[in-house]
Amino acid sequence: MTTDQILATLQTQKPLVHCITNYVAMNIAANVVLAAGASPAMVHAEDEVADFVPIAGALTINIGTLSPAWVSAMQKAADAARAAGKPWVLDPVAHFATPYRGEVVQDLIGRGPAIIRGNASEIMALRGAATAGKGVDSGDSVADAEAAAIALAKAQGCVVAVTGEVDFVTDGTRSARISGGTEIMPMITAMGCSLTALMGGLAAVAPAFEAAVAALALFAEAGNRAARTAGGPGSFQVAFLDALSQIKPEDLADDAGVQWL
Amino acid sequence: MTTDQILATLQTQKPLVHCITNYVAMNIAANVVLAAGASPAMVHAEDEVADFVPIAGALTINIGTLSPAWVSAMQKAADAARAAGKPWVLDPVAHFATPYRGEVVQDLIGRGPAIIRGNASEIMALRGAATAGKGVDSGDSVADAEAAAIALAKAQGCVVAVTGEVDFVTDGTRSARISGGTEIMPMITAMGCSLTALMGGLAAVAPAFEAAVAALALFAEAGNRAARTAGGPGSFQVAFLDALSQIKPEDLADDAGVQWL
Amino acid sequence: MTTDQILATLQTQKPLVHCITNYVAMNIAANVVLAAGASPAMVHAEDEVADFVPIAGALTINIGTLSPAWVSAMQKAADAARAAGKPWVLDPVAHFATPYRGEVVQDLIGRGPAIIRGNASEIMALRGAATAGKGVDSGDSVADAEAAAIALAKAQGCVVAVTGEVDFVTDGTRSARISGGTEIMPMITAMGCSLTALMGGLAAVAPAFEAAVAALALFAEAGNRAARTAGGPGSFQVAFLDALSQIKPEDLADDAGVQWL
Repeated sequence: MTTDQILATLQTQKPLVHCITNYVAMNIAANVVLAAGASPAMVHAEDEVADFVPIAGALTINIGTLSPAWVSAMQKAADAARAAGKPWVLDPVAHFATPYRGEVVQDLIGRGPAIIRGNASEIMALRGAATAGKGVDSGDSVADAEAAAIALAKAQGCVVAVTGEVDFVTDGTRSARISGGTEIMPMITAMGCSLTALMGGLAAVAPAFEAAVAALALFAEAGNRAARTAGGPGSFQVAFLDALSQIKPEDLADDAGVQWL
Repeated sequence: MTTDQILATLQTQKPLVHCITNYVAMNIAANVVLAAGASPAMVHAEDEVADFVPIAGALTINIGTLSPAWVSAMQKAADAARAAGKPWVLDPVAHFATPYRGEVVQDLIGRGPAIIRGNASEIMALRGAATAGKGVDSGDSVADAEAAAIALAKAQGCVVAVTGEVDFVTDGTRSARISGGTEIMPMITAMGCSLTALMGGLAAVAPAFEAAVAALALFAEAGNRAARTAGGPGSFQVAFLDALSQIKPEDLADDAGVQWL
Repeated sequence: MTTDQILATLQTQKPLVHCITNYVAMNIAANVVLAAGASPAMVHAEDEVADFVPIAGALTINIGTLSPAWVSAMQKAADAARAAGKPWVLDPVAHFATPYRGEVVQDLIGRGPAIIRGNASEIMALRGAATAGKGVDSGDSVADAEAAAIALAKAQGCVVAVTGEVDFVTDGTRSARISGGTEIMPMITAMGCSLTALMGGLAAVAPAFEAAVAALALFAEAGNRAARTAGGPGSFQVAFLDALSQIKPEDLADDAGVQWL
């Protein structure tokens, strides 16, 4: 499926996207998923995640603000997704920052995500590489993480998406780079987390590799449009949601920012 | 009390509204309550809810993002509200989506809410009707839910507000429809949750039926104003908060969008 | 260090700020810290706070939405900050509203914050004074709280910042008043919480007293700029983040709004 076909399918099917994400991201991630045309649901109670996953089209798990009850829910949700044949996306926020995060992420990776999305430092650290990451920010370039991404994709049998100035997506065999977006994005919290949620929505209607590329192309296009009018991170957020709601499938038909490798 | 009198009273008394709401809605719900002229407080610890309810003018409980500790706090808060003679508003978000949600909502309804506010699918499902609801979205029309709303209001001795394109409010005997608002609202997360919080603020200063109608009339007016300038869900949220802060009681004096049945 | 030097240092060093704050504030507080040029991280799990504090430049603790697990994490984080020699900022939101809050705040104060930031009612109540505070809102003027602030600073050996129409900062010996900002700020939720997070960022690169004054001067300047174009609380938030990202150190060089006492 091409990016425009994937967006058209999303907007027709309006899949329910089960998101377990951090407190910082919940509102903007839900608004991003809604603006693109899908239906987000933030559900994290251990008592209900396994009942919710099967009615959703996809699951996304972001470890930004962890606590033990949430970790249990993430595990149950991931297992339920595998059992129900639903794709799920892992966002290993700052997993290298503390031993607790590191253990949680290793456990979750073992539960079979369809896509892992992170910044360069996060992806490199998943392969055991030394990184210059600081807190939630990457200190490495996407180019430096490409080899780690390919190795990780092969080892886990999943798609890996590395985001930064130019994004990189690979399933271990096929790869793509996606350019676009704007330098203001890192100045706004939870943009990456919102992208993960959106990627889940697209993975509900398309194969994981194509869905990851489509999410990045859509995000870049919305970012480009928003940057034209934004005067800072406040107005950028507003313009970004507006742009996302206005992009039509045909606007992505030429895959302008995508370089298939 | 008429809608303009209720808004004037809210803006004079600035009641404290105790909100137990979901993580997605907390920020925007607080900002909506503030913009209308009341004072929100988000308090959910089991150790303090019973101490906080008596100093507030009203309580609102929204089950959007549940977990066991929060459920206990909701129960204690609801009981404290009844004991203190404070009205409380229940928002049964997607209660039909999982057994856990369903049990929590049935328990809470037994604790005597003054108002239940939900979308059509949520209200119909509270009467045991089959619904087309999907996740947090309604799949049914408000018109289809009117009979269920009246039956629910009679059975529980409370006010029921069903929101959608045209809202419906009933206390089992008297009813009203409120039109206005805009089709962009469902594209923004937590607007319904914010409305519930605002309804709590108005219920602190007016009888439940009139408060529910006033909240819907105020929301519709703010939505109409915001829609005039908004280019998408991002700018709509901004314009909506601005509009809410600018509406004066006299702007609602003619109850333009309200049809008393 | 002068205010312009402090901001320049923040923007060069981009310190990591470990924030334990409430659910309402998390997103806007992170965006405020980012807009000013630092790097926020919202981390609250008991299992990881002690590992995270040492890699951060400063810690901030806001008790807005408490629960027992969070209180334990706050205690561990505060202790870790002291052990690592990192400054930490306490925001005792509405601590007088319930016994639970009061006990938590007294415990945390004993763990040695470098700065306590609150509204007038909060600071007065920390000295045992009667207040007119209601929920999260102050019912007292900053002027009425100056004596309590000085006494609290002396007793605890820390800096105390009282915020309101004209802010007051003291270390018990030196004091300053900071004017500016706008009357619309109290109509937006979590502005004070965001200020606390920003103060933590500045305290990572400057002595506590100067950092507190600088944070207030920066906030006031951004508020003044935002008020020029804002039409209400929605557009104010947007303009405030934009303004914060645009302010350069030299814009604060004359310390226009600061009165050193």
